[in-house]
Amino acid sequence: MTPMTDDTTHSPRTGPLRVTVWGEGRHEAEDAHVARLYPTGMHEVVADGIRDHLGDGAQVRTATLDDPEHGLGEEVLASTDVLTWWGHKAHAEVDDAVVDRVHTHVLAGMGLVVLHSGHHAKIFRRLMGTTCNLLWRNDGERELVWTVDPTHPIAAGVPHPLVIDQQEMYGEHFDVPPPDELVFISSFAGGEVFRSGCTWRRGRGKVFYFGPGDQDFPVYHQADVRRVVANGVAWAAPARSGRAQPPVERAETGWFAG
Amino acid sequence: MTPMTDDTTHSPRTGPLRVTVWGEGRHEAEDAHVARLYPTGMHEVVADGIRDHLGDGAQVRTATLDDPEHGLGEEVLASTDVLTWWGHKAHAEVDDAVVDRVHTHVLAGMGLVVLHSGHHAKIFRRLMGTTCNLLWRNDGERELVWTVDPTHPIAAGVPHPLVIDQQEMYGEHFDVPPPDELVFISSFAGGEVFRSGCTWRRGRGKVFYFGPGDQDFPVYHQADVRRVVANGVAWAAPARSGRAQPPVERAETGWFAG
Amino acid sequence: MTPMTDDTTHSPRTGPLRVTVWGEGRHEAEDAHVARLYPTGMHEVVADGIRDHLGDGAQVRTATLDDPEHGLGEEVLASTDVLTWWGHKAHAEVDDAVVDRVHTHVLAGMGLVVLHSGHHAKIFRRLMGTTCNLLWRNDGERELVWTVDPTHPIAAGVPHPLVIDQQEMYGEHFDVPPPDELVFISSFAGGEVFRSGCTWRRGRGKVFYFGPGDQDFPVYHQADVRRVVANGVAWAAPARSGRAQPPVERAETGWFAG
Amino acid sequence: MTPMTDDTTHSPRTGPLRVTVWGEGRHEAEDAHVARLYPTGMHEVVADGIRDHLGDGAQVRTATLDDPEHGLGEEVLASTDVLTWWGHKAHAEVDDAVVDRVHTHVLAGMGLVVLHSGHHAKIFRRLMGTTCNLLWRNDGERELVWTVDPTHPIAAGVPHPLVIDQQEMYGEHFDVPPPDELVFISSFAGGEVFRSGCTWRRGRGKVFYFGPGDQDFPVYHQADVRRVVANGVAWAAPARSGRAQPPVERAETGWFAG
Repeated sequence: MTPMTDDTTHSPRTGPLRVTVWGEGRHEAEDAHVARLYPTGMHEVVADGIRDHLGDGAQVRTATLDDPEHGLGEEVLASTDVLTWWGHKAHAEVDDAVVDRVHTHVLAGMGLVVLHSGHHAKIFRRLMGTTCNLLWRNDGERELVWTVDPTHPIAAGVPHPLVIDQQEMYGEHFDVPPPDELVFISSFAGGEVFRSGCTWRRGRGKVFYFGPGDQDFPVYHQADVRRVVANGVAWAAPARSGRAQPPVERAETGWFAG
Repeated sequence: MTPMTDDTTHSPRTGPLRVTVWGEGRHEAEDAHVARLYPTGMHEVVADGIRDHLGDGAQVRTATLDDPEHGLGEEVLASTDVLTWWGHKAHAEVDDAVVDRVHTHVLAGMGLVVLHSGHHAKIFRRLMGTTCNLLWRNDGERELVWTVDPTHPIAAGVPHPLVIDQQEMYGEHFDVPPPDELVFISSFAGGEVFRSGCTWRRGRGKVFYFGPGDQDFPVYHQADVRRVVANGVAWAAPARSGRAQPPVERAETGWFAG
Repeated sequence: MTPMTDDTTHSPRTGPLRVTVWGEGRHEAEDAHVARLYPTGMHEVVADGIRDHLGDGAQVRTATLDDPEHGLGEEVLASTDVLTWWGHKAHAEVDDAVVDRVHTHVLAGMGLVVLHSGHHAKIFRRLMGTTCNLLWRNDGERELVWTVDPTHPIAAGVPHPLVIDQQEMYGEHFDVPPPDELVFISSFAGGEVFRSGCTWRRGRGKVFYFGPGDQDFPVYHQADVRRVVANGVAWAAPARSGRAQPPVERAETGWFAG
Repeated sequence: MTPMTDDTTHSPRTGPLRVTVWGEGRHEAEDAHVARLYPTGMHEVVADGIRDHLGDGAQVRTATLDDPEHGLGEEVLASTDVLTWWGHKAHAEVDDAVVDRVHTHVLAGMGLVVLHSGHHAKIFRRLMGTTCNLLWRNDGERELVWTVDPTHPIAAGVPHPLVIDQQEMYGEHFDVPPPDELVFISSFAGGEVFRSGCTWRRGRGKVFYFGPGDQDFPVYHQADVRRVVANGVAWAAPARSGRAQPPVERAETGWFAG
């Protein structure tokens, strides 16, 4: 008997982190207020924030819903270590074949960072197995993001609390599986609380959800928010170089024989 | 502002536990060896084991794949507190509409106990969001089920280890999300290990997976195994009488006002 | 080889739940305001709340700091299924020998419910291994207790949110190990959040911490709060009848032999 | 109101990882068999393994029980990012004042990697709050270390299973709190299982326990084992540059005012 020699024994991943920032890209195109906040698109601002923090450690590109295959063809995903996802009004337009493909890549090792209204994205619901429902209210109220796991690398360098002057309220009950790690809890001026920084493992992939980021407010221009997103991307990076789904296979016996 | 008066504030559940034991029912019909082990069907033996342990505390019925709607119509599920699931060779024949219905009921509060090869059932994969793949080998080898959470009610009265003389080996990596509670770990004579007793929460429902139970061996006739299944059913019972999925809704503000 | 026949295989626990409510008993004796709120002592009000909800299912007695051995002699603990603990100004006066004894009983199976300022009790710090520090402010502000685990029996019948009009603020970072189960998160009018309902397992015992309950406000007279405490007591009850610490022992081999 | 400006907002940690490898150092001095396996001391071999894998990324020094203050004075700990701990026969000789000091540093951010029989070290029991008891048998039997969390950086590059030809058996029930992350489960030729790779967070510090490493066998000379220890050290490194225990302090209000 010898240990399995498949990808599970691959060397640790090396080289710059290859990041793909996915944005729905519709609000900016259709709503003048959002276009003023994000003239180049929300995804480009998210991408810039990651570049700011990770520097030469990351290679960042963007993709949007209206690109062919939503910009998420097999070749793109195969060369993506971490994918970030922001969507809102057009979740239903995301092709199920693309959702299948992203799902497969996450289970095989690709990291996924889901932002704000991405809580209702098909890929997130697929990975969670739940409705991902929540309470909401868009009154532009103050959100305070409190760190509850000071050991977590996603919280490194983040003020306590991180203050966002105007945000949409997202509140409990947030119908997701209990997170493997709870990093942040937010309070809102209206009184609600929200588990706004959560991680889960799925297959060989790591998933981070971060609550802030409504299109109506300039949240992704805020330095502290950008740091959290960049930290989340770095955390979600696969530890191994290989990419393969966990197998189902018949195993030979004999580990304890003569 | 007043607290939400919907079902989340319902009284605790009372009355006998209403249990539906679902069995695929094919191996017994098609394989003489299995038919000898389970002349009335595996599901009937599982049901008897639950009755033995829960007595008057439970009302137990059975349903199978070849019943209309697989025996899992809306009325049945609406009057089921906990559903147990055993399937193997015919996972693909389970109607997606039934899977949707069971999924909805679990998220709304129905408990689910998944047995052995049910790890690849559509409903389990849907709830987990992963492949649920694993290693396997059907050589009828000894399995030892070790309790790693002695506080857990599912382990109450269970020997340490629980010994099963002949079982199919299921081994790691078991591609499921990290369980919320890990109750049992099994070792096999061939050397593998398996997280054989795991719990997860999904929506308002509780899920328990238990590894032992291959159709080729008389596992569900074994008293200790029946106790674990009964304990799992009791644990998975909803704490509340109401049944509703977690909502998405706009919340009024004012909790902290004047 | 036969499975171990020690207490780990004991039958499930049966009979009424034997509860001991421990109170420091000093604020009521020394502060007229607290004495008016709790003329019979805070512990008696906590005990009444448990009796109200558990009825014949529980036998409840009280003990206080100024009783001999703080009312927690070996005989008392040996006949206690669940101990509740409220202390504040006199944590340092609790005898280390009593702390050792309570610690031993928790690891051997006794449940423990720690209330409010009990976060700094010696026994809680001993079980957690951390400082159990937190932020605080006693301005009598509104606390909202939000349920984040609607499957949990401790949350059954509890409004969402549970509103406490006046309470001391306890805020993050609460320096405890990540809870095994996070049941409640509180927000305060001043803006802070707090993981106010947490569970942990230690040895064979279950531990529940619940945040509300400052001596300056009539919190334990509030029906919803009493329900949470009673639910917590019911949850923390040991599943097994035996009581023994997990052993260290040399094990014979041979499980897989012949 | 401004966010707290204390160390919690410090920049991420930079620079080489400063590692202190602590060894009891007695078996090598008193037992010829162990001295042959580890002529320079077990701690020096552990240190070499970390150097091999982390290279210029780490500065590694050693300390032992018989050094003044066990080699763990305030200055040493203040300049240690991660401490590893191996002890066995002399746990009782470790000075409580040193245990207090190490405990303080872990809660303030120092990482801790506990090896094999270190499960009964005072510092580990202090951090866990439990007995840390387990089953054992020293028959030099085969141990297989199976990865159950393929996303975890500690498992990167580790074969599945990692095979150790001769080891002391450590078996369940291992009386520790449920780990925050379960990375490895071991099986032994005699049939037992053991949660042999576990992580916990305590305060601002991260703790990793790894089972293999009995003094009677050349385990720390094995490349795969050295990789796990080095991975564990890298994982346990604090994310932040500052070091301070979580505070207890009165907080001003006003986050939601004006």
